[in-house]
Amino acid sequence: MTRYGPMYGPDVTFLGVPPCTVTEPVTYTDADVVIIGAPFDGGTSHRPGTRFGPSAIRQACYLPPDGSRPSLALRVDPLRDLCVYDAGDVEMFAGDIERSLAALESAVYAVASAGAIPVVLGGDHSIALTDATGVARRHGFGRVSLVHFDAHADTGDIEFGSLHGHGQPMRRLIESGAVRGDRFLQLGLRGYWPGPDTLAWMAAQRMRSYEMTELVARGLDACLSEAFGIATDGCGGVFLSVDVDVVDPGMAPGTGTPEPGGLTSRQLLDAVRRVCYELPVVGVDVVEVAPPYDHADITAYLGNRVVLEALSAIARRRRDAAGGSPWDPTQPLLDAR
Amino acid sequence: MTRYGPMYGPDVTFLGVPPCTVTEPVTYTDADVVIIGAPFDGGTSHRPGTRFGPSAIRQACYLPPDGSRPSLALRVDPLRDLCVYDAGDVEMFAGDIERSLAALESAVYAVASAGAIPVVLGGDHSIALTDATGVARRHGFGRVSLVHFDAHADTGDIEFGSLHGHGQPMRRLIESGAVRGDRFLQLGLRGYWPGPDTLAWMAAQRMRSYEMTELVARGLDACLSEAFGIATDGCGGVFLSVDVDVVDPGMAPGTGTPEPGGLTSRQLLDAVRRVCYELPVVGVDVVEVAPPYDHADITAYLGNRVVLEALSAIARRRRDAAGGSPWDPTQPLLDAR
Amino acid sequence: MTRYGPMYGPDVTFLGVPPCTVTEPVTYTDADVVIIGAPFDGGTSHRPGTRFGPSAIRQACYLPPDGSRPSLALRVDPLRDLCVYDAGDVEMFAGDIERSLAALESAVYAVASAGAIPVVLGGDHSIALTDATGVARRHGFGRVSLVHFDAHADTGDIEFGSLHGHGQPMRRLIESGAVRGDRFLQLGLRGYWPGPDTLAWMAAQRMRSYEMTELVARGLDACLSEAFGIATDGCGGVFLSVDVDVVDPGMAPGTGTPEPGGLTSRQLLDAVRRVCYELPVVGVDVVEVAPPYDHADITAYLGNRVVLEALSAIARRRRDAAGGSPWDPTQPLLDAR
Amino acid sequence: MTRYGPMYGPDVTFLGVPPCTVTEPVTYTDADVVIIGAPFDGGTSHRPGTRFGPSAIRQACYLPPDGSRPSLALRVDPLRDLCVYDAGDVEMFAGDIERSLAALESAVYAVASAGAIPVVLGGDHSIALTDATGVARRHGFGRVSLVHFDAHADTGDIEFGSLHGHGQPMRRLIESGAVRGDRFLQLGLRGYWPGPDTLAWMAAQRMRSYEMTELVARGLDACLSEAFGIATDGCGGVFLSVDVDVVDPGMAPGTGTPEPGGLTSRQLLDAVRRVCYELPVVGVDVVEVAPPYDHADITAYLGNRVVLEALSAIARRRRDAAGGSPWDPTQPLLDAR
Amino acid sequence: MTRYGPMYGPDVTFLGVPPCTVTEPVTYTDADVVIIGAPFDGGTSHRPGTRFGPSAIRQACYLPPDGSRPSLALRVDPLRDLCVYDAGDVEMFAGDIERSLAALESAVYAVASAGAIPVVLGGDHSIALTDATGVARRHGFGRVSLVHFDAHADTGDIEFGSLHGHGQPMRRLIESGAVRGDRFLQLGLRGYWPGPDTLAWMAAQRMRSYEMTELVARGLDACLSEAFGIATDGCGGVFLSVDVDVVDPGMAPGTGTPEPGGLTSRQLLDAVRRVCYELPVVGVDVVEVAPPYDHADITAYLGNRVVLEALSAIARRRRDAAGGSPWDPTQPLLDAR
Amino acid sequence: MTRYGPMYGPDVTFLGVPPCTVTEPVTYTDADVVIIGAPFDGGTSHRPGTRFGPSAIRQACYLPPDGSRPSLALRVDPLRDLCVYDAGDVEMFAGDIERSLAALESAVYAVASAGAIPVVLGGDHSIALTDATGVARRHGFGRVSLVHFDAHADTGDIEFGSLHGHGQPMRRLIESGAVRGDRFLQLGLRGYWPGPDTLAWMAAQRMRSYEMTELVARGLDACLSEAFGIATDGCGGVFLSVDVDVVDPGMAPGTGTPEPGGLTSRQLLDAVRRVCYELPVVGVDVVEVAPPYDHADITAYLGNRVVLEALSAIARRRRDAAGGSPWDPTQPLLDAR
Repeated sequence: MTRYGPMYGPDVTFLGVPPCTVTEPVTYTDADVVIIGAPFDGGTSHRPGTRFGPSAIRQACYLPPDGSRPSLALRVDPLRDLCVYDAGDVEMFAGDIERSLAALESAVYAVASAGAIPVVLGGDHSIALTDATGVARRHGFGRVSLVHFDAHADTGDIEFGSLHGHGQPMRRLIESGAVRGDRFLQLGLRGYWPGPDTLAWMAAQRMRSYEMTELVARGLDACLSEAFGIATDGCGGVFLSVDVDVVDPGMAPGTGTPEPGGLTSRQLLDAVRRVCYELPVVGVDVVEVAPPYDHADITAYLGNRVVLEALSAIARRRRDAAGGSPWDPTQPLLDAR
Repeated sequence: MTRYGPMYGPDVTFLGVPPCTVTEPVTYTDADVVIIGAPFDGGTSHRPGTRFGPSAIRQACYLPPDGSRPSLALRVDPLRDLCVYDAGDVEMFAGDIERSLAALESAVYAVASAGAIPVVLGGDHSIALTDATGVARRHGFGRVSLVHFDAHADTGDIEFGSLHGHGQPMRRLIESGAVRGDRFLQLGLRGYWPGPDTLAWMAAQRMRSYEMTELVARGLDACLSEAFGIATDGCGGVFLSVDVDVVDPGMAPGTGTPEPGGLTSRQLLDAVRRVCYELPVVGVDVVEVAPPYDHADITAYLGNRVVLEALSAIARRRRDAAGGSPWDPTQPLLDAR
Repeated sequence: MTRYGPMYGPDVTFLGVPPCTVTEPVTYTDADVVIIGAPFDGGTSHRPGTRFGPSAIRQACYLPPDGSRPSLALRVDPLRDLCVYDAGDVEMFAGDIERSLAALESAVYAVASAGAIPVVLGGDHSIALTDATGVARRHGFGRVSLVHFDAHADTGDIEFGSLHGHGQPMRRLIESGAVRGDRFLQLGLRGYWPGPDTLAWMAAQRMRSYEMTELVARGLDACLSEAFGIATDGCGGVFLSVDVDVVDPGMAPGTGTPEPGGLTSRQLLDAVRRVCYELPVVGVDVVEVAPPYDHADITAYLGNRVVLEALSAIARRRRDAAGGSPWDPTQPLLDAR
Repeated sequence: MTRYGPMYGPDVTFLGVPPCTVTEPVTYTDADVVIIGAPFDGGTSHRPGTRFGPSAIRQACYLPPDGSRPSLALRVDPLRDLCVYDAGDVEMFAGDIERSLAALESAVYAVASAGAIPVVLGGDHSIALTDATGVARRHGFGRVSLVHFDAHADTGDIEFGSLHGHGQPMRRLIESGAVRGDRFLQLGLRGYWPGPDTLAWMAAQRMRSYEMTELVARGLDACLSEAFGIATDGCGGVFLSVDVDVVDPGMAPGTGTPEPGGLTSRQLLDAVRRVCYELPVVGVDVVEVAPPYDHADITAYLGNRVVLEALSAIARRRRDAAGGSPWDPTQPLLDAR
Repeated sequence: MTRYGPMYGPDVTFLGVPPCTVTEPVTYTDADVVIIGAPFDGGTSHRPGTRFGPSAIRQACYLPPDGSRPSLALRVDPLRDLCVYDAGDVEMFAGDIERSLAALESAVYAVASAGAIPVVLGGDHSIALTDATGVARRHGFGRVSLVHFDAHADTGDIEFGSLHGHGQPMRRLIESGAVRGDRFLQLGLRGYWPGPDTLAWMAAQRMRSYEMTELVARGLDACLSEAFGIATDGCGGVFLSVDVDVVDPGMAPGTGTPEPGGLTSRQLLDAVRRVCYELPVVGVDVVEVAPPYDHADITAYLGNRVVLEALSAIARRRRDAAGGSPWDPTQPLLDAR
Repeated sequence: MTRYGPMYGPDVTFLGVPPCTVTEPVTYTDADVVIIGAPFDGGTSHRPGTRFGPSAIRQACYLPPDGSRPSLALRVDPLRDLCVYDAGDVEMFAGDIERSLAALESAVYAVASAGAIPVVLGGDHSIALTDATGVARRHGFGRVSLVHFDAHADTGDIEFGSLHGHGQPMRRLIESGAVRGDRFLQLGLRGYWPGPDTLAWMAAQRMRSYEMTELVARGLDACLSEAFGIATDGCGGVFLSVDVDVVDPGMAPGTGTPEPGGLTSRQLLDAVRRVCYELPVVGVDVVEVAPPYDHADITAYLGNRVVLEALSAIARRRRDAAGGSPWDPTQPLLDAR
């Protein structure tokens, strides 16, 4: 059986890492990480275009696609220190969300089953359902906590007559038991959705959602530390889901449902770094990059750097776990390592 | 039962014509024309965004939305000389093409059954299947010919594992018998799709497809006249389907699958006018206007003017049929009428 | 007499709130807030386009225009907890600033006289003159303080030979006595205008202007608290005027006179919230959103959210005044209220 | 008295021709042509931005601004064969149309009185009133015919409560007697404005308006020749007014009221050449270039080239009148001249 | 020795054709055509960006990159009927034009020497010098005529102190004897460059340059036929150089030196088809596609289609030469072939 | 010898300051500052366009170009309190980096030799080599420290086969001895370049590079103070080099190699102010503003304001040195000075 091809444009891997084929585990038996493209925007409630997200995130870089990216900040080369493959895109027809999500879930589960961390490039946030479920099927339902950066809670019930869509995956995940409500951490919420009924449902699940006001009033770092304590309480793994709209639309315009008042790009990168350095991450997705609404690729660049930041921190965590000295954010760049 | 609302943004009617409710025929018993929005891009094979087409086409005008547009060229006011309503949008979830198309077909059929001409604002071209079928259910399968302006034949079979999508509606229409293959007229085709198998299938159906080369070599007007002869041979009505990508992408960039070398906007407007003035049009759709790829609304304006041109010619045809002197394109604007 | 219609495009109300007619007070006797569009850019000294600001601000949202927006942060639904109407646009011909401003002042005064808070959507900042004057005519000249977020002082004298324009309204307001100079609070000024003479005039009026350097050095919150003390000293009401260019143009590009080095969107939203929660606001305007220079509607979204934030805080202030427990920014989102 | 300065940006002349000062005729006594900027968009009924038209038209060129432009087609260097000055911009405050138009009229009249051809760079089409009036005051009311390329007739009466605006100048010109209605030639009209009353008024004035349909049906060249016969019947001079929206918005998007179905750029350039080569042109304006809606400066480039084409044809006409052999459009470029 | 890699972004071949390595002729011994990327904009006199032209032209398509493109018009599949490889990009540092051009010339010569037709994707027009020279070195200096579509003659002498640049290649080609001046055919020239001295030099070389005026007055097809007669008089091969700015900038904005009044896209495609079907083409370049100034990829699409049109016509020419019936542009698409 | 002219567009000076001619020192003997345009992007490794940077930076302002800009924050008018000239552009052909850099170095050295501070407007960062060398030739090799704001270290060795390019100037400067490695201060570095070898080289030179992580963890102000101590240790002057990509691309998109996670515009302006107020600055460059990738000129505005902020702080430093009271950032704007 042949490799999944790209849905849109040429068959390009993430910054030049080697390709693999999801349906042939032998092609990635030694993988630490497998990247999967989910070029799907059929679940978007407003501006479409995330179908081109995987392609844009893979390529958004001014450096050559040579499968190497030495991190200045973390002093690792995530694409070399880790064994990273790119499985290409899952075929996901926008007009059939159920079939598309099922196909993606199979791919994620295959990767997780092979012992690798799936990193899924969206696509709209509908895919968080399958991304986290695919991982949970491997690590145990209720055994993986979820750290979720987003402007929106994504806990809607039925919208446009469907159980599926980019505003609903988090509810489905809790309903199915894949993720425990009280191990569900949301950061960056703001704005005017959802309404009281949904918030009541969320509270009943004992979710922990940090609205921007709380993040500003208490400090992002303090809230992260608190959330990390919850995330690791009784869970062996963490799934990280990053909706790029958690960043202020003034800095990340290429997205479908922009909500002013978000994090800066710097804050998101630092937060992602902390999650992946301090927690046992077993799966990642980066979603809602919508190139048609982007300018000069700045949102695509941000998506690319979120992936690299996550991988760098995972690599550094492993190095430190193997006996390295812990990472010190105040260390000057050129000091001996 | 209440009126169909808009899927995106406020409830705006086409240039201010009065609203109606599809499910309540009493609200449009006197209608000559009912406009229906089909905000669906789940069937797009490449660039999405046509979900915002209905909203853009309805509003793209620098004149006030007052329900009046006196045509300089045809000396009618199509929005006043005809009784035109706007039924708003059909709810069409991008992630479920089958349910979406079914909902649209019901609406189109209801309007046609009431004796009005449905004018459907797409949306991607997947909807041509339901638009023409809804009309054919009223006028008789095989009794309505189809005049189709497009860069693409849209006669694909299965794509992305689905029978439905914006590259396939014309095949489905012929297979079902809704439209006879030998009463299917295509104008403006060009480029590198479809391949020989599909072309052979089309030839076997006895379709008549005018590639741009033929239109240039023989002249657009001669080809149109020839096509009109076929269209009215044994058919009591004509469905006009206008894919905005028939115009050169240099003049109409806001579309999903641009193919260089098309008509000018002027040519399309003149051709639409001839179709609607010379033929018994019983249904219209205008599709593939994709606002995220547009610039300064020029493609949306073109979509709006295609609708107005069609309605103006229908109005003039009716006036002349009622005893007016026939329209003369060389008559000076300010000559007595 | 009929309702003011829109100047540009269809007659759409702010996020779907009910319409009213300014000249018929019976249509808004129970109003807490009346929104007024001021589609005027005839007073702009540089990039025009704010004439499309009211339409853009009203519609910039990915949620349906259903007249409901439950605030996550403040736990109120400003569009339901308050009685909010939208009076549509005042007709303001760009080529005649004097007549246009007079028409707007009448509308603002009518709303204020009915006991409602006018919220004016600009439009260029010329309108601040009439917005604040209209309110002061109701509450008493010199009895309303002005809290003004802006990159520019807008205290110019004569420009382009005219007393009116978007760089001069604040001078006119003080000269007329509508607002006391020593109850005029400006936040976010920066850059290279005005020059010493105008600054001397401002100092002589005892205005209190916070340049960005001071806001950064002392902290925005400390400065706000200080300003609030001045604003309420002897004034029974506060007019809030928000020029969107107070935000850094990197985050809010859709404006006419961008001045780098401004607030973040998050800072502005938090500051607007504090003004409307802590002070007795009697009028609001949000100006200088210029859609032709915007990208992906991000500046329009910001304008929309500034309005919602103001209304939410007003609603919460009223609820707390009626006996509710005071708002606590550190309270987790899902904690019982 | 000093030279008129620019309203927006640096003091740049048209492609580097020398500057002059309108109020000091001594600075342009030898002028054949004086260029005047009219940076005014206060009369625009829809999209503003033409205030930046003069600056954009002056600079839109990839060649150095060296005051020389040898025309390949006409074998003259209009900027050297003619004596061309640029008087800079007239100060025109958008918020005061009456004062602005009066200032412009003075400038145009001064130039015409000095025996030079004024070439006015708009700005919105409101200025045609003053441009043509200024010229008629010199050459005699009713003694100058008007050749007018436009999508719109611009013969409205009162709009937004004003007699002035970009939809009305042609009516004012005829009412005042500056231009005879029966020497008023319009080419390129189309669309859905104005309505029957205005058309009746136009017919009563015996205007000759060529709608696009007639131009296509009869041929642009035939219509031009017919129009030229009318224009020179009893009139000693011709004023040429070019609204860039006569070109299809697909090719010239940077304008305020785009109407699909227009001329191509090539057609406009050829037509302008014929007007200025075959007729005794005494004044020109080029209006409605709106940079905020332009892309990659293509509309500004077109405006620049319309000016150059007009000047080149004027220069060639003078050369041929002085005894040169008449221009032959079929002559190969490199044949001896 | 390894394959030339891409200069910018991933290693993608033209629409998925197989790769080859220029320096290893064994990788393309059976080639009919070899595509070479020339990502160079160091010779541009105005807007840069053509360095991204090769990547954009290779990918600009909504169909999958599967190495197959059946032409509707010509009934061949150029990517399958011909043996087409893509050699990737030549490394061309913008800051060193001499070294860059030398590297490209080597590549072109290698391909021509192997008996294949080089098709070079620019890059700015500086590269025409090396493209045509590389071919002439194989086929004989003075033995290859040049058919050149362009708005500009590109016959400048020294600019910015350099003999090389995108305004000068044609002069260098004639000076070196690579191409005979009297077998140099230029079509589409227009505007205001070059001046009399350069035109005199061109005339002295007996070049044949068709300015747009002549093309319009005599008809493009008649001029092409005339030019074809010259091109094949004593020359065994033809090099086709297509500068995308020959098309009107209104339809092809993504270019560096836009000159209004050009061909339509349709005209260019038809003309390219005639050249490659009627003449013995031995080399092609397509230049001046500048993605930073493009909109919605329309100019990149045009570049892609110019390449496909050329290849299709070459394939059809070979098929007909092998005994097929000649191509008939009036043949209906679905008629038996 | 005449003045250097502009390379692109009209001869415009920075905000209207008077012009001078570099090769005629008599034209700027009294200069405090001379501005030099370096319209060069031949050294860019990715997105070009900085050739238009000088023109954009000079003009990006909504105020008239009157040679006056009173700073609100620093209470000086840098364009009047200092004697500032603009020498126009150095001719720099993109295709010849060596010749271009040599020409620029001559110009910078001439200005420095005349006792003025050269302020060079880039252009890509290749020019830092010549900018700092030109200054060091006047003040002594190794006697000028370098304060460098950038996302990138720009210490690469050979790239694209060249010693020169925008990723390498800092290495060349240290290698030549123009700047001491241990007086080289870099702020804002981040991302994934350069790799370990280059970092080791940098450490061996004893450079001090502040990656964003350190700036966030320790605070920008603390790091600046530390860096200032190093900069002035044994060096009599400081060269300030500002690459606009040190700001987050979300706020400054118009640049060639965007790296997410940077400073805000506010932070950069404040930091530049501190450098120029607290240190003895003898040269400045502002580079990498690339207009083709900008939106609504926001990056050009930022570049303009960086220049003004630097000049304002220099002017204030001189005033205070002459006996003024030191600048106090907490002083209210309208307090007596």
